[in-house]
Amino acid sequence: MKIDDGQRFFSIFSAVGPSAVAGESPVEHHLKLRVRYHEVDGQGRVHHAQYLNYFERGRVEMLRELGHSYKEMEASGLMLVVRQMTIEYLFPAEFDDELTLTTRVEKSRGARIQHRYRLLRERDQQPIVAAASEIACVDRQGNVRRLPGWLQQPS
Amino acid sequence: MKIDDGQRFFSIFSAVGPSAVAGESPVEHHLKLRVRYHEVDGQGRVHHAQYLNYFERGRVEMLRELGHSYKEMEASGLMLVVRQMTIEYLFPAEFDDELTLTTRVEKSRGARIQHRYRLLRERDQQPIVAAASEIACVDRQGNVRRLPGWLQQPS
Amino acid sequence: MKIDDGQRFFSIFSAVGPSAVAGESPVEHHLKLRVRYHEVDGQGRVHHAQYLNYFERGRVEMLRELGHSYKEMEASGLMLVVRQMTIEYLFPAEFDDELTLTTRVEKSRGARIQHRYRLLRERDQQPIVAAASEIACVDRQGNVRRLPGWLQQPS
Amino acid sequence: MKIDDGQRFFSIFSAVGPSAVAGESPVEHHLKLRVRYHEVDGQGRVHHAQYLNYFERGRVEMLRELGHSYKEMEASGLMLVVRQMTIEYLFPAEFDDELTLTTRVEKSRGARIQHRYRLLRERDQQPIVAAASEIACVDRQGNVRRLPGWLQQPS
Repeated sequence: MKIDDGQRFFSIFSAVGPSAVAGESPVEHHLKLRVRYHEVDGQGRVHHAQYLNYFERGRVEMLRELGHSYKEMEASGLMLVVRQMTIEYLFPAEFDDELTLTTRVEKSRGARIQHRYRLLRERDQQPIVAAASEIACVDRQGNVRRLPGWLQQPS
Repeated sequence: MKIDDGQRFFSIFSAVGPSAVAGESPVEHHLKLRVRYHEVDGQGRVHHAQYLNYFERGRVEMLRELGHSYKEMEASGLMLVVRQMTIEYLFPAEFDDELTLTTRVEKSRGARIQHRYRLLRERDQQPIVAAASEIACVDRQGNVRRLPGWLQQPS
Repeated sequence: MKIDDGQRFFSIFSAVGPSAVAGESPVEHHLKLRVRYHEVDGQGRVHHAQYLNYFERGRVEMLRELGHSYKEMEASGLMLVVRQMTIEYLFPAEFDDELTLTTRVEKSRGARIQHRYRLLRERDQQPIVAAASEIACVDRQGNVRRLPGWLQQPS
Repeated sequence: MKIDDGQRFFSIFSAVGPSAVAGESPVEHHLKLRVRYHEVDGQGRVHHAQYLNYFERGRVEMLRELGHSYKEMEASGLMLVVRQMTIEYLFPAEFDDELTLTTRVEKSRGARIQHRYRLLRERDQQPIVAAASEIACVDRQGNVRRLPGWLQQPS
């Protein structure tokens, strides 16, 4: 739980992750976003809660690129719920900024998926936020369920 | 940055923190909230990004209880910006639930404040989320500034 | 659909409405709100979409004051959906402002409820917005349903 | 202020508007949107306040297409603020729906712009909402200002 200042989260993101070690190509998705007016707060910057919505969109679009629909997954009775989220805010994004979100699956086994996120400002590659989340698969009653096969990483 | 599953964040919250060790009464604030309809997502639960807005409100109301106004602080040219946030989602809150948010200052020195947050469902004390954040004091140009004296903890 | 500038909406609100004419005491509800930080946009003012969330809260709290729970109503299979909304923005509210929302049922018959809303800044009674909405009662399939008896006005 | 049910707002939108009468090509902008997860409420439908954010994005993107930046306009000291908004909710949009927003300038003179909006579901052209707004140009102190020349329609 301690976050060591000398060991910045962002650097971890770009490091070689476990999936890469295993010789698999890590699942990574890139999404362009433009900051909308209502996402900005009274400081003229993207409100810090807003980035979680960007990450969510990254996960949905990554699934779509892999040929799956999160909407259909929910319709089938399985939901993905966020269990843990850690965000480092590195630099403020502003209204109308074009951003690039990289969403990466770090690990996907059993009932859980670990993602990492990196958000850069497009024009100069300025890092904006870096984040990690753990997501669990549950059914409509909230019981933990194994991820569908297509969401499991080969072991 | 690693979050050890065996060392759950929530337990850390209730443990004796550094400020308590020092013999100071830790600054702690309690706020009652009721979940609004638009805060709930398609799963019928509070959207996970929404909790950051609750924490923000906790910080503002804690300042007010201490006799200060965050609005006036911003008018004076100093802003508090979130640098880091970690959240554990323990149980879903639903529309109309009454919640109690406890906001606690863990440490407040130099230009930074560390808070911890605990959100319980009021009717049965069910823990909903636990979180920690690090906040920095900056001026309008984004330069880091020492916290005003009244925000500094005695050392 | 035409909104005549010379016949300001706000004045209509305070005029004697149809329910008052009929000799009934119109159902009116007052709610105190404080503007939260994340509700404010880059202009330092409450974002114009945010007021609809305030009105929604006004409707929910009005029902509660009348001894009913909107949550239970939805659990029973009936939902209230907004069909039409008209808002006049009169003066900007800012972060931390204390506001008073008056929600009034103008008409409630068949499957529809008409509300009017007036939002004032508490410290000086400055009018902030005035609005009117039409809400319909539907079931889970979206079919229009008669309002439950307790939501119908006596004719 | 009265909205006549027999004279549905949506039909007005598709009628020949004043700008078309004058022989000018009306300024119209089309934008594709996909409904994000956090925009949906507990009924599984886009929350009714969310559409105002879509309209705002329509206005910003229309300006961009015309070669202007709303961000630069605000930086120059002029802001566009919503004075009035009327929305008819015709059919609920759901998570992941692809929508097409048409934003049209009805009138743009002096300090005010009138827009109309029409939002359709792309796959079957199902109308979702229709709306109209009046926007005013103000300076940082909130004083009404003439629109910049490039925002004025030829008379």
